[in-house]
Amino acid sequence: MRIREVRNTRSLAYEVRLVDGILDVVASEIAQAAGGRQLLVVTSPTVHELYTRRIVADLLRSDVRTSCLVIEASERRKSLDLVEDICTFAGREGVDRRSVLVSIGGGVCSDLVTFAASWIRRGIAHFRVPTTLIGLIDAGIGIKGAVNFRGRKSFLGSFHPPEVAFLHPAFLATLPDRHLRAGLSEIVKMALIRSSALFDLLDSECENLDACRFARRDLDSDEILWLAIETMLDELEPNLFESVSYERPVDFGHTFSPIVEAASEYTVLHGEAVAVDMALSSTMALHLDLLSPDEHAEILGLFRRLGLPIASPLLNVDRCMEALEAAAKHRGGAVNLILPCGIGRTCCFNDDCAFEPGFLQRALCATQEAAG
Amino acid sequence: MRIREVRNTRSLAYEVRLVDGILDVVASEIAQAAGGRQLLVVTSPTVHELYTRRIVADLLRSDVRTSCLVIEASERRKSLDLVEDICTFAGREGVDRRSVLVSIGGGVCSDLVTFAASWIRRGIAHFRVPTTLIGLIDAGIGIKGAVNFRGRKSFLGSFHPPEVAFLHPAFLATLPDRHLRAGLSEIVKMALIRSSALFDLLDSECENLDACRFARRDLDSDEILWLAIETMLDELEPNLFESVSYERPVDFGHTFSPIVEAASEYTVLHGEAVAVDMALSSTMALHLDLLSPDEHAEILGLFRRLGLPIASPLLNVDRCMEALEAAAKHRGGAVNLILPCGIGRTCCFNDDCAFEPGFLQRALCATQEAAG
Repeated sequence: MRIREVRNTRSLAYEVRLVDGILDVVASEIAQAAGGRQLLVVTSPTVHELYTRRIVADLLRSDVRTSCLVIEASERRKSLDLVEDICTFAGREGVDRRSVLVSIGGGVCSDLVTFAASWIRRGIAHFRVPTTLIGLIDAGIGIKGAVNFRGRKSFLGSFHPPEVAFLHPAFLATLPDRHLRAGLSEIVKMALIRSSALFDLLDSECENLDACRFARRDLDSDEILWLAIETMLDELEPNLFESVSYERPVDFGHTFSPIVEAASEYTVLHGEAVAVDMALSSTMALHLDLLSPDEHAEILGLFRRLGLPIASPLLNVDRCMEALEAAAKHRGGAVNLILPCGIGRTCCFNDDCAFEPGFLQRALCATQEAAG
Repeated sequence: MRIREVRNTRSLAYEVRLVDGILDVVASEIAQAAGGRQLLVVTSPTVHELYTRRIVADLLRSDVRTSCLVIEASERRKSLDLVEDICTFAGREGVDRRSVLVSIGGGVCSDLVTFAASWIRRGIAHFRVPTTLIGLIDAGIGIKGAVNFRGRKSFLGSFHPPEVAFLHPAFLATLPDRHLRAGLSEIVKMALIRSSALFDLLDSECENLDACRFARRDLDSDEILWLAIETMLDELEPNLFESVSYERPVDFGHTFSPIVEAASEYTVLHGEAVAVDMALSSTMALHLDLLSPDEHAEILGLFRRLGLPIASPLLNVDRCMEALEAAAKHRGGAVNLILPCGIGRTCCFNDDCAFEPGFLQRALCATQEAAG
């Protein structure tokens, strides 16, 4: 047998920029990063009315070749069809290999654009301009694209880093409060897995954290935002392609939540489902003596004060078992359940005792009771 | 402005194995490489009847969890729909992140499987078992997947290396002669861009190169095969993701050919279109004094003796202009036309004089005349 091994190393770097100043700055930042390349902007209807129309006009005024596609992006419609629509748009606009796709919108919009950018001519560049809190601190700053497929959340997708993520909290001024809360849920996650400092800051500010504060960038809200971003990137960077390990602390809150989202037909927001999952996981950790009763009470207390749900009628033992099975399929064969073992620390749990129906039932009941 | 740069390096390695022995060896080689993982085999109807049915039975007998999907793969139907069909099959069979897709078939089959493997759970492993000559020396040993989209050949796709490509020339025993010739065309390409030794070998063996010789692996045909494979991999390896340079010698013969294929509605085989393109490009090189008349005659002579077309009624000046424009879109803005400047050497041409309608017309006429 003759064998030839082919080897290569691919280095990548991308930038996450927290942009200062008024919103007008965004267009000039994008124009500068484009450096003469064609821009293909994808956005959702509401964001288009509020912001994108103006940003595109500014780009055209700066002589940047720009076209815009408005798509009805929603978690429910996060499908291959919409990725195909983006590719059709790109083809029609004469996309070349140097063209740049730009997503201006929430996590669903950037998921679709990322996946489309990874397909077109085997991968073109993309920029992200997240307009939601979850986009600013989670979906917009990683490297993933995804769509749901035949009832499975994010079953298809790709790793395709953006060239730049432009973060501007001023977009949050118009974010509905429910969506702001959902974003806070992912910030709590980062605090719980890696930063007790972030937890303390959330704890002291939680009574009056609203979209306006983030948008006008007072000192504490800005600190929360940047701390959440840095914590997330510190966590992602060494295992960016999930090729080093399937034991990922950022999966905390993401084991039972996909099934809650799907069962609700995506009427429960991602961040809300993540909160429900984190509350259940924390109670499991309590019952496994990984978490003290005080810590458990402190965690659930923060959820309550942030206006986040800690239980859902959609979650029952059968669905939990189904979720654990799906997680194992996605995490290399083992469940790798991330549980908190203190505030700012997690452990990866694979002991079967935590996956027994009886144990899950007890944790579900206790969490529901705590929810009152 | 606060800026955080995220950096990562991704190393990859894959193996190309020229498998010895009788065909039965293929199943045991695959089983060994699977190492307990689930296999999801995708194949085309003819190959299924001839080979895959037996290979799958052998795998099941070796206790490898294996399922098989038969798809009507053809260049004409190389579409997103078929990639979606593969994903549906994988979902139905309970694919997990460690499962392996296996393509047993020609270049279209591996193009579809590669693209699907890059989507599923953001990328699972795949094996390739090429059954055509073009698969053995070209489509099966690189890292590309692709589909045609809205009239554009290979407009969408991904770079997603196989884990192993298992090459077994015994499959060629049943390859129709026309498809064998089309494969020889890509071997001629490798000779012209990088290996005068391969050119000489082809030249001395061309009178009686048939599928049987490759299948029974006489010394010279085996040498041609391995030399073509090594030459291709030497060429691909340093620029595997086409991120280092858009000036790629392997693009020789691939500028005008996509439009010939598309215009024929894919009734002209890829390798045949590549031969037509190489003949035209060689004549352009002659008219630009890059190639001597002797070299030009030698090249076209080899095409003729290998039974390859050197002209096509589908190629005219308008289509050539269209093809040059499409090439520039795909090669970072410049045409980067690869022309031979001797046997085993190329240059990358961007001088406008070669892209004038008059110049192209003269080259087309001269090539058609040479075709007789």
